[in-house]
Amino acid sequence: GSDTAAKAVANRQDTLTKPQGSLGKLETIASWLARWQGRDMPRLDRVKVFVFAGNHGVTAQGVSAYPSEVTVQMVANFAGGGAAINQLARIAGAELDVIPLDLDHPSGDFTQVAAMDEKAFLAAVSAGYDAITKDLDLVCFGEMGIGNTTPAAAISAALFGGGAEKWTGRGTGVDDAGLKRKVVAIEAGLKRHAAALADPLGVAASLGGRELAAIFGATLAARHLGIPVLLDGFVCTAAAAPLAKLHPAGLAHTIAAHVSAESGHRGLLEALALPPLLDLGMRLGEGSGACLAVNIVRSALECHARMASFAEAGVSEK
Amino acid sequence: GSDTAAKAVANRQDTLTKPQGSLGKLETIASWLARWQGRDMPRLDRVKVFVFAGNHGVTAQGVSAYPSEVTVQMVANFAGGGAAINQLARIAGAELDVIPLDLDHPSGDFTQVAAMDEKAFLAAVSAGYDAITKDLDLVCFGEMGIGNTTPAAAISAALFGGGAEKWTGRGTGVDDAGLKRKVVAIEAGLKRHAAALADPLGVAASLGGRELAAIFGATLAARHLGIPVLLDGFVCTAAAAPLAKLHPAGLAHTIAAHVSAESGHRGLLEALALPPLLDLGMRLGEGSGACLAVNIVRSALECHARMASFAEAGVSEK
Repeated sequence: GSDTAAKAVANRQDTLTKPQGSLGKLETIASWLARWQGRDMPRLDRVKVFVFAGNHGVTAQGVSAYPSEVTVQMVANFAGGGAAINQLARIAGAELDVIPLDLDHPSGDFTQVAAMDEKAFLAAVSAGYDAITKDLDLVCFGEMGIGNTTPAAAISAALFGGGAEKWTGRGTGVDDAGLKRKVVAIEAGLKRHAAALADPLGVAASLGGRELAAIFGATLAARHLGIPVLLDGFVCTAAAAPLAKLHPAGLAHTIAAHVSAESGHRGLLEALALPPLLDLGMRLGEGSGACLAVNIVRSALECHARMASFAEAGVSEK
Repeated sequence: GSDTAAKAVANRQDTLTKPQGSLGKLETIASWLARWQGRDMPRLDRVKVFVFAGNHGVTAQGVSAYPSEVTVQMVANFAGGGAAINQLARIAGAELDVIPLDLDHPSGDFTQVAAMDEKAFLAAVSAGYDAITKDLDLVCFGEMGIGNTTPAAAISAALFGGGAEKWTGRGTGVDDAGLKRKVVAIEAGLKRHAAALADPLGVAASLGGRELAAIFGATLAARHLGIPVLLDGFVCTAAAAPLAKLHPAGLAHTIAAHVSAESGHRGLLEALALPPLLDLGMRLGEGSGACLAVNIVRSALECHARMASFAEAGVSEK
């Protein structure tokens, strides 16, 4: 990140016609854009939402309220413009790119085998990494994958401890028995893959899924290319979390766009020291929360770029 | 409000391609629009931000960090497009209407006299009431008035008790001595006008200000005309608060768009049972927080209006 660009933004903020600091997080967001774009005057000409989709072998354990075929059905719904993210991307002025990852071949059931072997894991990470192009100014990451709050909870438990129950919620809406099956499955996964879990990449491969691995790769690519990232909900945050374990500032170029109603998310954001921008009780995924934050980021930049200074406007200072 | 319209929206929400309830507050916002517009399918074709401006005699007590002439200077800045609200209204797709209220004649210093006599109070209420036209689909209210966190705190204390200190914050940035002067001024106002404070209208006239009275009138007009309202920060909320004292559902057509960093706001929203939509550490006024919420309301409506149902998209249900 560029300290110089962030400082230039902070200096300009203090000349604009408002009490210093009175735009709150809008001011820090403008600095954050500058730091990670490496530009004294950030820009938001191209904003893109990536939705990665994958299927999960662990659904065999009865961990989701919906059948696995919904993943591919929802990918078709994205293509037809009928999903929430289609509407949210339009309001955000963001392009939408949906990337299905080998939906006919679910990841392995992690209660029995690794979710992905090294080859499958690297292929999914690369799919995410290669999706990001340097002409983008801001990216939102989201996901679709029936069953994927289970790998998200398993990754969170493996990286931050506290036991399966702490991280397990109702996802799309499982009943009490389904919730219990999720906890049992996660406990089994943590036990089976214990030897691999000291390495954050081992966690992601053993317990994750293709769309989660792609988000990991895409978040890394964004860092390399100087593109700030809006993370979405529990699954997206868990997908990116191994980066924070690999490097203490591994997620410094990201903002947690919102905190989901999925029960593990708040604790995960706390563990990552990522305060959420929004708290709207959402739990849909698809990048929906990230996309809602785009206009707040746009507002931050427009205020920064286009407000008059006290001198320009002839307004008296204190 | 129309129960029928709100119910129609809730019923449609449950058919859309998402787990029920997973859009969180976006779903309740869509119902709220329907209820107060009285339309099964709400619309947001015309959204307008009103910024009412007034000057305050109580500034003679040294309660603000800025001189009173900043009010008229900022009104000029609004006209020139250089203020935060100009940028925020553009991003929100909202028209901006700035209404200065007799800026050459500040309200009375409420430590000595009533802020407004009956005639001045009704004129200001009417200015707000008459500004609202029935062709609007959503309105945001904001204010500009050097010194106006002092009347806002005085109104809050008069309506909800707890003493001046509970409601008094640093506004645009007074130091400790200024903060103390604010508390002393508010205590003096509460004492001087004690006889008038049993009546919420007496509170607004004795301790308020012209821009606050206009927001009161505009909020009432919106209710009569079927227009949902986004309230802004501490001053705006305090201005509208007498309506909640006059009728228990007097603010049911409003959403608190954000909670300000000004210290009294959170408690005031709690007293009014208005949970804030956003919490971004802002404390600028001008309608800035309300305006930031507009695209969230737009997102709620677009999801509601344009998402496909499970049947339309061929997506399997639970």
